[in-house]
Amino acid sequence: MEELVEESVIRTLHKVTEIWGGDFKINVVSNPINFIKGWKKLGGIVVHLTMYGINIAEKPSLLAELRKRCTDILVVVGGEKMPREVFDLADYNIAIGNQPHSEVAALAVFLDWFFEGRELVREFKGAKLKVIPSERGKIVKRVSEDEKRRSADNPCKENTR
Amino acid sequence: MEELVEESVIRTLHKVTEIWGGDFKINVVSNPINFIKGWKKLGGIVVHLTMYGINIAEKPSLLAELRKRCTDILVVVGGEKMPREVFDLADYNIAIGNQPHSEVAALAVFLDWFFEGRELVREFKGAKLKVIPSERGKIVKRVSEDEKRRSADNPCKENTR
Repeated sequence: MEELVEESVIRTLHKVTEIWGGDFKINVVSNPINFIKGWKKLGGIVVHLTMYGINIAEKPSLLAELRKRCTDILVVVGGEKMPREVFDLADYNIAIGNQPHSEVAALAVFLDWFFEGRELVREFKGAKLKVIPSERGKIVKRVSEDEKRRSADNPCKENTR
Repeated sequence: MEELVEESVIRTLHKVTEIWGGDFKINVVSNPINFIKGWKKLGGIVVHLTMYGINIAEKPSLLAELRKRCTDILVVVGGEKMPREVFDLADYNIAIGNQPHSEVAALAVFLDWFFEGRELVREFKGAKLKVIPSERGKIVKRVSEDEKRRSADNPCKENTR
């Protein structure tokens, strides 16, 4: 919900995606509330991560419910200044713990719980480089054209099994 | 491993801890490498989170190993500029996925895996305020003196069960 997105952040994301794959995009929207309303109109779900919400560790069934609906999910993260309206517009107000915490951390842990850790081993389409996990040091290999095409890219289908 | 810690960050952490409990502290060290060496000399374990390390999702037994040793753990997070020496000094070079990612996210997901989600429901000692989880809106209550004393504060013991 930041109103100002630094150009350098956008450039860095493009660069990372170009080298390491995936189709991450940044869209700067001028009216986030309208964006959320439009998302819902198109049938998407809105999950708002807030320390005031239902604690995910106390109600993990929320995740099963979300996965079952397997439709596009908009995850909204913000902070103290989040407009009250977002709490009402959200289909789910979910807390990644009810203590103050980093929004980046909340988003990461939410995604990790949602994908049950599978996101950590996922291959990203179009990667030029790939890390070979190592006990010491940095091992990186170039990805062949063949491998590039093989990378899976639909995590939602994976989750409905 | 930041060399510069902004005063405002320290002030914010103090304020958060005063209101929401816990005994989080910031120590600014001038020589991180020496700090790591000192930690190891005193019998502590060093975990370095790096995208080049062993993927935690491919070897979750590392966590069982860490928990079993139940001693003080220093988690080192950095980024591209991490000195090569840290890879050698670390007892474990662990990757929270082998794709580029936020260090804050890596630390959060590591702690979540280590504590198996229990950190999300943990009570923090000395809290003045407490969130009552809610489907909509913000509900906060004052913590009584009695409750303040009851809060558990030893997550390690919890983990060796």
